[in-house]
Amino acid sequence: MNGDKWSKQEKAVARRAFETAYEKECGEIINKIQEMAKKASDPDEIWQLHDFLNTKRREIDDKYDFRYSMLILVFARLLKEGWIDAQDLEGLREDKITKIKELARV
Amino acid sequence: MNGDKWSKQEKAVARRAFETAYEKECGEIINKIQEMAKKASDPDEIWQLHDFLNTKRREIDDKYDFRYSMLILVFARLLKEGWIDAQDLEGLREDKITKIKELARV
Repeated sequence: MNGDKWSKQEKAVARRAFETAYEKECGEIINKIQEMAKKASDPDEIWQLHDFLNTKRREIDDKYDFRYSMLILVFARLLKEGWIDAQDLEGLREDKITKIKELARV
Repeated sequence: MNGDKWSKQEKAVARRAFETAYEKECGEIINKIQEMAKKASDPDEIWQLHDFLNTKRREIDDKYDFRYSMLILVFARLLKEGWIDAQDLEGLREDKITKIKELARV
């Protein structure tokens, strides 16, 4: 996968798909934070929110790796988890899309 | 300060003052979290909230140390920061209260 070349157009498509997924996933985290914060009434709930954010930050840092050598795997994961759909990948070379979809099924 | 003895009654007063402060300070953290969460609309604000909670958790863990050898210092800090007031210390031996107040002024 390290050998995949990305054209200028593909880079733009990749950047857009990547950012769409990031915004979408962070949007869900914001919803969850708002819900947890609203219900919080005792100190333990502060630390539960902190634990939740620790986990999410590690997960997001790990997942959103915009190196071209990693993008096929990254998009496969995002597709599998529903943060992007096939349409977001339109504009990438067919063999890349095929690889992404295959890996997303694993 | 390590040599201070705490009677059963003093231990009860100390525990109550300690918990009052903890609940009060955590209550303020909850207010702040709710305010930050409510305003959050983009991913950076998630990580700002996370950074805030990292700092607060370290601060709270460091501050709320209920070892009798540490309590004079702990109460001096809580008094200085306004999480307890002189009334919360009533029932402790006079020399302890004096020490706490002196240290709180430093």
